[in-house]
Amino acid sequence: MPQISEKGRSMPSSPVRKLVPFAEAAKQRGTHIYQLNIGQPDIKTPKQAIDAVRQNDITILEYSHSAGNLTYREKLISHYNKLGMNLSIDDIIVSTGGSEALLFAMGSICDYGDEVIIPEPFYANYNGFATASGVTVKPITTSIDNNFALPSIAEFEKLITDKTKAILICNPGNPTGYLYTQEEMDQLAALVKKHDLFLVADEVYREFAYDGREHFSVLNQAGLKNHAIMIDSVSKRYSMCGARIGCMVSKNKEVVAAAMKFAQARLSPPTFAQIAAEAALDTPQSYFDDVIQEYIERRDILISSLKKIDGVEVANPGGAFYCVAQLPVDDTDEFAQWLLESFDFEGETIMVAPAAGFYSTPGMGKNQIRIAYVLEKDSLVKAVNILEKGLKAYLS
Amino acid sequence: MPQISEKGRSMPSSPVRKLVPFAEAAKQRGTHIYQLNIGQPDIKTPKQAIDAVRQNDITILEYSHSAGNLTYREKLISHYNKLGMNLSIDDIIVSTGGSEALLFAMGSICDYGDEVIIPEPFYANYNGFATASGVTVKPITTSIDNNFALPSIAEFEKLITDKTKAILICNPGNPTGYLYTQEEMDQLAALVKKHDLFLVADEVYREFAYDGREHFSVLNQAGLKNHAIMIDSVSKRYSMCGARIGCMVSKNKEVVAAAMKFAQARLSPPTFAQIAAEAALDTPQSYFDDVIQEYIERRDILISSLKKIDGVEVANPGGAFYCVAQLPVDDTDEFAQWLLESFDFEGETIMVAPAAGFYSTPGMGKNQIRIAYVLEKDSLVKAVNILEKGLKAYLS
Ligand SMILES: Cc1ncc(COP(=O)(O)O)c(C=O)c1O
Ligand SMILES: Cc1ncc(COP(=O)(O)O)c(C=O)c1O
Repeated sequence: MPQISEKGRSMPSSPVRKLVPFAEAAKQRGTHIYQLNIGQPDIKTPKQAIDAVRQNDITILEYSHSAGNLTYREKLISHYNKLGMNLSIDDIIVSTGGSEALLFAMGSICDYGDEVIIPEPFYANYNGFATASGVTVKPITTSIDNNFALPSIAEFEKLITDKTKAILICNPGNPTGYLYTQEEMDQLAALVKKHDLFLVADEVYREFAYDGREHFSVLNQAGLKNHAIMIDSVSKRYSMCGARIGCMVSKNKEVVAAAMKFAQARLSPPTFAQIAAEAALDTPQSYFDDVIQEYIERRDILISSLKKIDGVEVANPGGAFYCVAQLPVDDTDEFAQWLLESFDFEGETIMVAPAAGFYSTPGMGKNQIRIAYVLEKDSLVKAVNILEKGLKAYLS
Repeated sequence: MPQISEKGRSMPSSPVRKLVPFAEAAKQRGTHIYQLNIGQPDIKTPKQAIDAVRQNDITILEYSHSAGNLTYREKLISHYNKLGMNLSIDDIIVSTGGSEALLFAMGSICDYGDEVIIPEPFYANYNGFATASGVTVKPITTSIDNNFALPSIAEFEKLITDKTKAILICNPGNPTGYLYTQEEMDQLAALVKKHDLFLVADEVYREFAYDGREHFSVLNQAGLKNHAIMIDSVSKRYSMCGARIGCMVSKNKEVVAAAMKFAQARLSPPTFAQIAAEAALDTPQSYFDDVIQEYIERRDILISSLKKIDGVEVANPGGAFYCVAQLPVDDTDEFAQWLLESFDFEGETIMVAPAAGFYSTPGMGKNQIRIAYVLEKDSLVKAVNILEKGLKAYLS
């Protein structure tokens, strides 16, 4: 029997799906599950995006340009340029989700065995893309005690070798919710310039910056023309995860030319989804104002409720819609599984993502979970109450 | 300035797009171009596929299952099982085009430096996917003299090393149009069993088998349960290239489990496109009968006209909608460029794909071109006439 690859064997499973089989147990006892484990927003997609697809008059559904439809790219450029990014049409490649943009970026800048430094905990699928691309992830651990702020530059420098090609940040962070300050961006900029590295910023949660704080894009940083690569996506911005449209943006011509060859090999991004994404660019500001107000309220109620639980520590997210909480248990993998298999409170339980899967350093994050606040406030309050009751029962 | 990867540098450009810049020259002189270079059919997409998308009532465009919507997978299984494939729901992963299925397959079975044997000329993007996956392509040259039939098994065995993981065939072939016989499939089956290799069959042109001949899928071959991986796509079957839906199918549980981890990392295939693909499965047989009749007529008129040109040799395609022609010129790259830049006949010229890009062995195919018969018969006749006139002018 032919054997699969070592790559295929070592490809990490998604930590947010790990518990799915155990959810069956809860469902079979008739227990309602609050799903806080995945980043699938419950927010409505802007109507004009769906309507544009409904009104399509396509007769032959052809391949689009490998970099994406010109009309979409032009509109996207003007969207970014309103944010002061000063881009031209050749700086952007439309991808099948931010996911594919991450694959393009890794492939364009890294060879087999090259290293990318990533502050952990980080979006777990970075591991998958790195494995697929033959890239070695070098994690640099951040701490819940300071909300997972940027580690000191000295810590980064300790990890830099002649195989280091890039630093990858997620801003604001999944799972941390951390929003980098201008000062932190300055430090990173100096670092990548000093060591001739790429700075890849995954900004798929860019709009979700709270408390009136500004988001500082890697593309707005001075002097990073050849270093900066931005990853974006319509998935979270317009709650249209199923469209599968993202993009890779860089002013480094060589990077875009290389990524373009990856893009041409897979022919084109999906056409219907590009129509939706183009129409979504006209979403009025009021939509975002409402959505962000909603997320702020959810965050506030979630964080304050979590803080009231004995022994629970929680970082305060400045953006995105996740938070990491530290629980008074040894192994959140076991605890989260137990919540599904063996616990309910008034016929309900919760599904959370054990945080170990967001760390690359073995053993880290074992007492942490990630909660996605993708449910309404009432549900969040009930879910935190279940967590509290669950912890009590589990620890007694 | 940070440097891009060797991978990014060596990533091949698409041979069918190479000439696009020169087409500008023709357009600027007002010359009409018959585009025979790309596999974008001019056939209408089945109306019910587009209508299903038009009638969608989505309010939140969510991620689908990473393996694709269950309803689509179920319908797809029953479609395949009507062809005697005897599949179950766990054997299939819906992908973003056949392109992504090829990436999943390579990643699941090959590590960095592993080898895949591919009869050449082959679909040029196999090179891109191999480069992206760190896989080495070992070409085995086939000949226009026997319509690019399967080389002898002895030739394959010469290339097998301890790094060989798979044989990849395209059936029917792009660019050759070659349709493998049951005998050839038997030979390949014996070979992969003897050497414990995977047999990956790209069957995206499966329905396009002509002259009443049967298509022999790798999934219908006895004894290949653990060896066979099938790549499929809706792009050509329903002329819906822009949807971006394909799939990887295998009865080897380990392969599917590994591919599933790649699929989970990128989250899901596009939702609108899955709706279209699911509806397309109800396309009546009459649609295919008409389309195939049309392609047969195009092929017949194309091949017979080409054969009439002095010094032109052409393989007779048994399937797909391409043919490879050998021209009495030294370098079809130059000739094809010249056709665009410097030639027209009655205000018209043609764009063809130089075939060297479909070979992996340096120097091969330099006197060949690929013609995609994706235009109406009248246009094909005119295009061949332009080729004839062009050759005369070029050679005089
Ligand atoms: C940080 C981050 N980056 C990238 C992605 C990929 O999203 P998509 O491929 O849907 O754009 C996600 C999705 O959850 C994410 O959280
Ligand atoms: C032989 C072959 N395989 C795979 C593909 C990929 O097609 P898609 O990704 O549109 O399914 C093509 C497209 O032309 C092809 O010709």
